Amino acid sequence: MPNDIKPLREEKVFKDPVHNYVHVQDRTIWSLINTPEFQRLRRIRQLGTTYLTFHGAEHSRFSHSLGVYEITRRIISQFERNNYPDWPVEENLVAMCAALLHDLGHGPFSHSIEEAFHMDHEDWTCKIILGDTDVNRVLREASPDLPERVASVIRKDYEKKIVVNLITSPLDADRMDYLLRDAYFTGVNYGTIDIDRILRMLRPYNGRIVVKESGMHAVEDYLMARYQMYWQVYFHPVTRSSEIILRQIFRRAGELYREGYAFGFLPQPLPSLFEDDLTVKQYLKLDESLIQTTFMQWSEEPDPILSELCCRFLHRRLYKYVEVDYIDNETIEEIRSSFAEVGLHPEYDFEIDFPTDLPYDVFRPNDSNRGSQILLLGKQDKLREISEVSDIIRSISGLQRGKNHLYYPHHKLAEVISKLPSKIASIFPISPD
Amino acid sequence: MPNDIKPLREEKVFKDPVHNYVHVQDRTIWSLINTPEFQRLRRIRQLGTTYLTFHGAEHSRFSHSLGVYEITRRIISQFERNNYPDWPVEENLVAMCAALLHDLGHGPFSHSIEEAFHMDHEDWTCKIILGDTDVNRVLREASPDLPERVASVIRKDYEKKIVVNLITSPLDADRMDYLLRDAYFTGVNYGTIDIDRILRMLRPYNGRIVVKESGMHAVEDYLMARYQMYWQVYFHPVTRSSEIILRQIFRRAGELYREGYAFGFLPQPLPSLFEDDLTVKQYLKLDESLIQTTFMQWSEEPDPILSELCCRFLHRRLYKYVEVDYIDNETIEEIRSSFAEVGLHPEYDFEIDFPTDLPYDVFRPNDSNRGSQILLLGKQDKLREISEVSDIIRSISGLQRGKNHLYYPHHKLAEVISKLPSKIASIFPISPD
Amino acid sequence: MPNDIKPLREEKVFKDPVHNYVHVQDRTIWSLINTPEFQRLRRIRQLGTTYLTFHGAEHSRFSHSLGVYEITRRIISQFERNNYPDWPVEENLVAMCAALLHDLGHGPFSHSIEEAFHMDHEDWTCKIILGDTDVNRVLREASPDLPERVASVIRKDYEKKIVVNLITSPLDADRMDYLLRDAYFTGVNYGTIDIDRILRMLRPYNGRIVVKESGMHAVEDYLMARYQMYWQVYFHPVTRSSEIILRQIFRRAGELYREGYAFGFLPQPLPSLFEDDLTVKQYLKLDESLIQTTFMQWSEEPDPILSELCCRFLHRRLYKYVEVDYIDNETIEEIRSSFAEVGLHPEYDFEIDFPTDLPYDVFRPNDSNRGSQILLLGKQDKLREISEVSDIIRSISGLQRGKNHLYYPHHKLAEVISKLPSKIASIFPISPD
Amino acid sequence: MPNDIKPLREEKVFKDPVHNYVHVQDRTIWSLINTPEFQRLRRIRQLGTTYLTFHGAEHSRFSHSLGVYEITRRIISQFERNNYPDWPVEENLVAMCAALLHDLGHGPFSHSIEEAFHMDHEDWTCKIILGDTDVNRVLREASPDLPERVASVIRKDYEKKIVVNLITSPLDADRMDYLLRDAYFTGVNYGTIDIDRILRMLRPYNGRIVVKESGMHAVEDYLMARYQMYWQVYFHPVTRSSEIILRQIFRRAGELYREGYAFGFLPQPLPSLFEDDLTVKQYLKLDESLIQTTFMQWSEEPDPILSELCCRFLHRRLYKYVEVDYIDNETIEEIRSSFAEVGLHPEYDFEIDFPTDLPYDVFRPNDSNRGSQILLLGKQDKLREISEVSDIIRSISGLQRGKNHLYYPHHKLAEVISKLPSKIASIFPISPD
Repeated sequence: MPNDIKPLREEKVFKDPVHNYVHVQDRTIWSLINTPEFQRLRRIRQLGTTYLTFHGAEHSRFSHSLGVYEITRRIISQFERNNYPDWPVEENLVAMCAALLHDLGHGPFSHSIEEAFHMDHEDWTCKIILGDTDVNRVLREASPDLPERVASVIRKDYEKKIVVNLITSPLDADRMDYLLRDAYFTGVNYGTIDIDRILRMLRPYNGRIVVKESGMHAVEDYLMARYQMYWQVYFHPVTRSSEIILRQIFRRAGELYREGYAFGFLPQPLPSLFEDDLTVKQYLKLDESLIQTTFMQWSEEPDPILSELCCRFLHRRLYKYVEVDYIDNETIEEIRSSFAEVGLHPEYDFEIDFPTDLPYDVFRPNDSNRGSQILLLGKQDKLREISEVSDIIRSISGLQRGKNHLYYPHHKLAEVISKLPSKIASIFPISPD
Repeated sequence: MPNDIKPLREEKVFKDPVHNYVHVQDRTIWSLINTPEFQRLRRIRQLGTTYLTFHGAEHSRFSHSLGVYEITRRIISQFERNNYPDWPVEENLVAMCAALLHDLGHGPFSHSIEEAFHMDHEDWTCKIILGDTDVNRVLREASPDLPERVASVIRKDYEKKIVVNLITSPLDADRMDYLLRDAYFTGVNYGTIDIDRILRMLRPYNGRIVVKESGMHAVEDYLMARYQMYWQVYFHPVTRSSEIILRQIFRRAGELYREGYAFGFLPQPLPSLFEDDLTVKQYLKLDESLIQTTFMQWSEEPDPILSELCCRFLHRRLYKYVEVDYIDNETIEEIRSSFAEVGLHPEYDFEIDFPTDLPYDVFRPNDSNRGSQILLLGKQDKLREISEVSDIIRSISGLQRGKNHLYYPHHKLAEVISKLPSKIASIFPISPD
Repeated sequence: MPNDIKPLREEKVFKDPVHNYVHVQDRTIWSLINTPEFQRLRRIRQLGTTYLTFHGAEHSRFSHSLGVYEITRRIISQFERNNYPDWPVEENLVAMCAALLHDLGHGPFSHSIEEAFHMDHEDWTCKIILGDTDVNRVLREASPDLPERVASVIRKDYEKKIVVNLITSPLDADRMDYLLRDAYFTGVNYGTIDIDRILRMLRPYNGRIVVKESGMHAVEDYLMARYQMYWQVYFHPVTRSSEIILRQIFRRAGELYREGYAFGFLPQPLPSLFEDDLTVKQYLKLDESLIQTTFMQWSEEPDPILSELCCRFLHRRLYKYVEVDYIDNETIEEIRSSFAEVGLHPEYDFEIDFPTDLPYDVFRPNDSNRGSQILLLGKQDKLREISEVSDIIRSISGLQRGKNHLYYPHHKLAEVISKLPSKIASIFPISPD
Repeated sequence: MPNDIKPLREEKVFKDPVHNYVHVQDRTIWSLINTPEFQRLRRIRQLGTTYLTFHGAEHSRFSHSLGVYEITRRIISQFERNNYPDWPVEENLVAMCAALLHDLGHGPFSHSIEEAFHMDHEDWTCKIILGDTDVNRVLREASPDLPERVASVIRKDYEKKIVVNLITSPLDADRMDYLLRDAYFTGVNYGTIDIDRILRMLRPYNGRIVVKESGMHAVEDYLMARYQMYWQVYFHPVTRSSEIILRQIFRRAGELYREGYAFGFLPQPLPSLFEDDLTVKQYLKLDESLIQTTFMQWSEEPDPILSELCCRFLHRRLYKYVEVDYIDNETIEEIRSSFAEVGLHPEYDFEIDFPTDLPYDVFRPNDSNRGSQILLLGKQDKLREISEVSDIIRSISGLQRGKNHLYYPHHKLAEVISKLPSKIASIFPISPD
């Protein structure tokens, strides 16, 4: 047993609907889970605003982080049980800590807030691990260099590349857990994968994690499940609509803040967020409760744009959308200008979502980055990139998908539709109901 | 088709992990779901603080309310399909609305806040239905007397007793949905019941809902599932510990408020909550985001009791507990006074939970209240109360269970344990962890 | 590692719908599975004629035996992982072999054929293990005394009582597997139990397997699942009807055989079965294919009783039944004699099934036989029999259940019903459809 | 209600592990299920010899046929509920009967026996429906032309093309049921599909069944599940090995029969099978019990080839296989001749399986046969063939897969391997295991 492992007197378990039980055998892991920084993840949803589309998707990053840890623990324990020579057992604790803590820096409604305030959750994860926090103290207690090693795995520059590859790769515990968990909580059963079989097929090999060739079909199934979850859940146009509202709220509040507008409600750490000088301590106070409470208070702000947007978000009065095959920049400009003419806000009452904006990566193997590949380990230890072998995977890995979506406030637009040029009006399906 | 039913052009569905799909065919139901009052239920968890014990239990009353509606819709549609003469089809819409709205008045962390502020969620449900709200407008639009009829079903004084019995009985859609849903989200699979079979066995009969005798075993299984969920989930001592903290926060804040303490953070509607004069409009602003945000801000209040309790809640530093078979009042007094002597707060650092305080009702048939009974419909339309027929049910229906639990702050107590009289000290298992 | 364990070069797995994978790590287990004697279990259904009631119940004793082995392997491997001092690791292989082979001696439609021919499957299991068989050879190869030790565990007279208790007790792997498996294949979901939790709670203690006290609710749930499966599946009156037909066929064929009747079809080993002098080699040729083929051929035998019964079985023309609260011997005699008068066969056209005939043992703890008890291991290693602690279990452990059922051939009876005395006729619900 | 529908007094249900309940509301369907011809399907496994690879796959064609009926019933009842004008409700009974009976003519180990004896199960299905059988009588009773109409649907020449398309198409109830059922019983969870969603998306349109465009992802998922089941289950090389043994037994017995060999066991209808003049009545006596019993008896025949093959089948001593990328005819001939030289039977001790022999049709849309296409119904009733729209489906629909497999008796070959030319010997991986 590596000497930084300090077993608990008795294994602790968490009941988990996805993995049945999450097992904690190590004192450091147990202490990390009980830090305020890790507990904060209970107040951040795993899927941001997706609960407005799939009402079951109310699960938190806390649950997901436990799941990623559990999968990693199972992989490692299988590596150990089989005495695979290529796995460095002295890295067990680093790997489990990195798995547990990899999402520690996520903020509320992560993707939207990061975009609005130019933040990066990975940076914050490292700042929390390395800063004056309980997480840092717990890690240091296990071993003085542990915080830096864990942060280094998360930054992907850790010297033992196999640990980085275990934590971040197309088949990593993070992706496996969220696929299973998001499928479970949304109820969209496309995400069900045979995780036991995939885990049994993983092998540490020559500085990275590879898959036994006989596991190819299980990997195909896993990538197809990812593909389905992308189109059924992650890129659902209704979810995109709620994200647009969220971004508009942040944008509007930022404009007002810079204009010196007197908010009726603006507790710390919001001013620091707008000033872009959040300390770690302040960052840790940011959670989805604060954001929702703020929106609730702002729903009565005098600024009509801000209050309307907050009502839209809280009461789920989202923008409608229309799908268009193609739209040129000229038409977009025409829409904006004619919207302005009839008294709509072109900046807020119209948004366009291009498929190329989607963070689409069901699977994109890349020659120059072996970490983004899935390698199959065949007979005589022959390694082959999976899309060379699997037609299915080759066919999805290059796929460009998605349509342009135009978002707009249906009722507001309906009131003025008759005043719009017919070319513009005809783009938007305004009808009763 | 009853004339208050206004079908949607096309059925709408919600993807639901428990019922697969929730189907909405009626325009009034669809509009009710889209009111701000109903959307607010997304910000209130179904199981209060249980997520601190079972991390999956993050589901909202919104999901549950949709589920109760869906089960009710299925029951009614089966009654209609079979043309059972005892079911009044003209009550379909009232029943579905009551099912959907029955939890509308729940506040944040419902049971704890009701206890602390002497509120009653059923009263608030009726106030919202009858008040100046979108819910009221939608109901009135369907039929002017609909708000009053729905409220009356919820108050259980509706003239058509069978509708009340459908909505509130030991086998109602509410109980069936929460059993399935809480089991699903906690991952505790004891709650799995054969709901299809139970639904097929329900019959409207002579002013109430009864069960075909051949469904007896399915009902036994359902009551056993309830029994297991009570002891595994609802009365879990760790959940009780978090509820104690919550109540203490409300109690402390109330004391401070009455003393005129100057809170650094006390947005509306909190002052009105403390003053006990909440309007409906204010009540609708109360949600769990506000409570959690308030606790976050209060965690830095100068009052040490309040700030410590808020930290405990947010960072899940709950009180430990010890189970005792019996404890007399004298000993309780001794604990309190010796705690005070060593500098602990007897009012906050010690709580006792008696099993008789538990709202325990797996099943308690009562002769004088036929609504609390489950009746089996046998051959020749003979009705029998189920515990007459089932030994299993008879044996659990009278059962008194549970132990006394003493709750205390482990670390604080450990620091002073050596100063306590040994009789008192020996009660609390203080060990190095 | 005990020195009779001979690990395979690479673990083998069987895909199993109940346990996901069955893992074989030991060469002896692998070889046992591949013997003709063990493969024969593929041709014997786990639930006899139950498939005539629940069409999914077509699973074999082969599947079940693998499942029992797998559960036992998991229990043992957990005992080993935790280094529990009370578990004798040198017994691992004996325990796993006994688990795998415990049903080896089951004949076709086991319960009915045993009753008809006074056989005992446990005797046959031991004869096969100790006889001139491949199973015997494989066991001897691992260790010369292994056949005798395995047989001794099955006979329950093995000197290490804890091994016997692991294999045969109210919480043994056999019962756990069949509960889960029969629930899965029938589709009756009452049998779902939290097996992971139960397994985690088992402890080897002082010569037997006990349960940690905190696992009490899981055991309650398990016993309730047993209770439900008994009444929903195992004692289903339609299954009893098919068993009655089966017994009648064996009875009639025996009568004919003893009378010297010339069967058109009677391949070995059937004559030896009738003569009651089956060798092990012959016994191993008995399977359900042979029985069904024989019935198919006999369905054209000249003897009308035999051919009709065989048609009934093959074409599922079972006897109907009526449930009666009580029936006295005098009435039974009257039924028989009046049946004879109208030309029915009182021996074949009427059967009665008393609940006391049912092999009912959801749970029957017995002071004098500690092996039939479930002991809870509490604090300070205090042992308590579970029904002392659990009200639920106490209430079901004494329960006497079931009704008298009268079985009869509906169409034949309908033809003569008008000739029967009205008192007798009124017992049988003869109506169209 | 069409006038050939005769509702049962009370709906009957079958408990089904895949669809939960199978509902029978019509008297004709109920009577058909109770015919000897339909009950015979209980003695024919759905997946032939697959149970030798996946031990759970012991389910019968009886279960599957009920499942196909149930899915068809649900589709039809949804068509009726929505009053889709393109569905001819007067065809409901024909469609349900065809669904229920479509597999009626399957023989034991269907694919192998059909190949060996040049039979066709569809022909036999029609012969049974049109012949002197109870099925025919039940159908005629409902309506005199019903047998011919049902047979015509099965022959795919029924005049109402939409009924044929409902029963036989890439998205038919047959394929949906076996995918779900085979996944359930093997435990291979790749086959799980969202059948509720697919059913909700089906529309009768202009003489065929099409899919609403928004159901495209569900269809993609369904075809991927098919793809996975083909490669994980249906074409599993171990299953192919058992089919090879089976075919060899039939081949050898045929050779012997034609040579006038005196079998010790050859009950009817086996002689007629060999003579190729089976009557319907005889055909109905063919089931898997008979085949297995015959093999058991033949395992002691003097002919060494026959007895060895029967032992192999019964005791699961299958041929091993080796996968080769390519093999030319010359090499095949060399293998055969050198096998003969060392005393092996080139006709029995070596078989080769080419992927092109596989009945592979995950999906193969064909312009000239619209019945083999899946059409999507988009806005303005625009129809598009699915592989035009879905990249995924386009990529799998043309896919050619599979490898050449060489099968051989491992132990027999091992004994003579040293005598083979090294070029030939090196092809076969003979190792100590």
